[in-house]
Amino acid sequence: MNTMMKISLALLRSAILLTFLTIAVLSAFVSPASAADTDQDLMNRAKAIFGPLPAFMPSPDNPITPAKVKLGNMLFWEPRISSDGVVSCAKCHPLGLFAADGLKKAVGNHCKENPRNSPTIFNAAAQISAHWIGNRTSVEDQAKQALIGPPSYGMPTYESVEKILKSMPGYVKLFREAFPQDKEPVTVDNFARAIGAFERTLMTPSSFDDFMNGKAEALNAQQKRGLRTFLDTGCTTCHYSPYVGGQIYRKFGVFQPYENLTKSQPIDEGRFAVTKNEADKYMFKVPILRNVAATPPYFHDGSVEKLEDAVRIIAKLQLNRDLTKEQAADITAFLGSLTGAIPESAIKAPLLPLAD
Amino acid sequence: MNTMMKISLALLRSAILLTFLTIAVLSAFVSPASAADTDQDLMNRAKAIFGPLPAFMPSPDNPITPAKVKLGNMLFWEPRISSDGVVSCAKCHPLGLFAADGLKKAVGNHCKENPRNSPTIFNAAAQISAHWIGNRTSVEDQAKQALIGPPSYGMPTYESVEKILKSMPGYVKLFREAFPQDKEPVTVDNFARAIGAFERTLMTPSSFDDFMNGKAEALNAQQKRGLRTFLDTGCTTCHYSPYVGGQIYRKFGVFQPYENLTKSQPIDEGRFAVTKNEADKYMFKVPILRNVAATPPYFHDGSVEKLEDAVRIIAKLQLNRDLTKEQAADITAFLGSLTGAIPESAIKAPLLPLAD
Repeated sequence: MNTMMKISLALLRSAILLTFLTIAVLSAFVSPASAADTDQDLMNRAKAIFGPLPAFMPSPDNPITPAKVKLGNMLFWEPRISSDGVVSCAKCHPLGLFAADGLKKAVGNHCKENPRNSPTIFNAAAQISAHWIGNRTSVEDQAKQALIGPPSYGMPTYESVEKILKSMPGYVKLFREAFPQDKEPVTVDNFARAIGAFERTLMTPSSFDDFMNGKAEALNAQQKRGLRTFLDTGCTTCHYSPYVGGQIYRKFGVFQPYENLTKSQPIDEGRFAVTKNEADKYMFKVPILRNVAATPPYFHDGSVEKLEDAVRIIAKLQLNRDLTKEQAADITAFLGSLTGAIPESAIKAPLLPLAD
Repeated sequence: MNTMMKISLALLRSAILLTFLTIAVLSAFVSPASAADTDQDLMNRAKAIFGPLPAFMPSPDNPITPAKVKLGNMLFWEPRISSDGVVSCAKCHPLGLFAADGLKKAVGNHCKENPRNSPTIFNAAAQISAHWIGNRTSVEDQAKQALIGPPSYGMPTYESVEKILKSMPGYVKLFREAFPQDKEPVTVDNFARAIGAFERTLMTPSSFDDFMNGKAEALNAQQKRGLRTFLDTGCTTCHYSPYVGGQIYRKFGVFQPYENLTKSQPIDEGRFAVTKNEADKYMFKVPILRNVAATPPYFHDGSVEKLEDAVRIIAKLQLNRDLTKEQAADITAFLGSLTGAIPESAIKAPLLPLAD
């Protein structure tokens, strides 16, 4: 090897080294730009799957008016129309606890246990149906039927409820204002419409919405990893829409009976109870995940206390995926970004009309 | 009679007639002034017996601070420190129902019936004691002991409550802010102080206060008659102070056993249960009458549903007075003027800290 060649080789080595160094240095500098690109990708994927949370949950059958919302807010807190004088919507949906009661299963009049866990009523009106097994068509239907539900308000008849409401002049006036076209406005159907109108205003936008709206820093690094894992693992097969669920029924326990992991007792056959169709055995409505971190315990029977455990269990049952501890923690952190801001109007316990 | 005399007599008659006419006309014009004098008398009598409602109920042992009130408002609504996860202060004192529950007797954890009726906690902290039989020294003492009261929160120990509160970082922070001098601020004693500070802000000034402050038209004619009858009949022997009661114990049924008229079942021996002193048999704390029209049913056992009936019964039992229908209606109308304005802060159901 002549001197020229040695020099050439040395120069070549230096050039290669310099190139690598340059790439390394440039990479270090461009990495924020890459992250931004990735954030943008993540935002786009999220927006495509979830979409923006609307300002309220509209209903062509029950247009929202201020007078209905005002009355609905009061009726939501009204216990004097229950068989023991203690049950109101707010009993199983205390607004200060994100409109869920924190119990395994809801407790109604005279301490009767309900068959399933109380879901939050925040953001809830846009679901396919109400109740875990879809035996209520809407939040309005749920509110109305609760009045005569034996483990709920437990009233003997709808007429008995109307009689109590009609006995309070304050309510008669409010029903008249909320339903000005009706000759006899104080009905359980209008009770249901007023409660429904109130509930349809209870949206809780969260930092996740800020992220989807382009604010990359609204989620921290762990929450972004969690969102990515949530999208990649297949959670969004069921948990989609702005409500992150609530749009379909699915068999709980696709790869094995759910009670294997939840230790549930007794076994609930889900939507089968409604349809008597074998195919509906163990089918439940996919719950919305808005505010899920704030509304333990989990699943239809509240059988699992911790959100991270619920995340691991559902991934195994539905997708046969064994999440690592890190993945479960990341998804749990992402789910925390769905805990929203509660509208001021929602956390008022309004003064109720006096008995005559 | 000469002409001069005739003329003089005619003039005299005319003068007398004119005088009478003048008096009659003037009387017609001055009658509002007379009424105003009477209103002023009534105001003066009322002010002497009742006195002005303060802006809040102070306590040298538990100074009111914004941080304590904020924490107390939240703890007031907190059900997760009860044995069934359902009982909070707000259960037996729903603020939307003027902080009384409308039941004959309060219902605590696991639907256990309490021995007596829930009194309102509005304006309540300035009473001689808490509870109908005075077995709690103050609202703070009541709040603390309720935690382990078997028919109330039903928790096994104070430590079990403290453990739950300490498990929620949101509460740890709030206790620290409310009790900055304390090394270990999360205690049931501080729980009681925070609840007490919140309750001590819950004053409900009413049209009766406007009247005492000189606004004669704040009470209508029937209410003024009722107030006069209330003062004249002797009701104020027991129902005095700005709270219209709450300052002394009295035997319920001075002239005959109370159950003769209330049909109470079982018979409650009142304060005797606390002191075991024969002289305290059937002694109860005289209840405050602020918001009494808004807080049925009546008496220590809620045995009487209508306020007008309660008015007639108590006058007969305590004063041996048979009120006429009109007198009872007038007093009831006056008591309606004690229904006050609820502070906005009182009817908030605040968002509670999340479980860890």
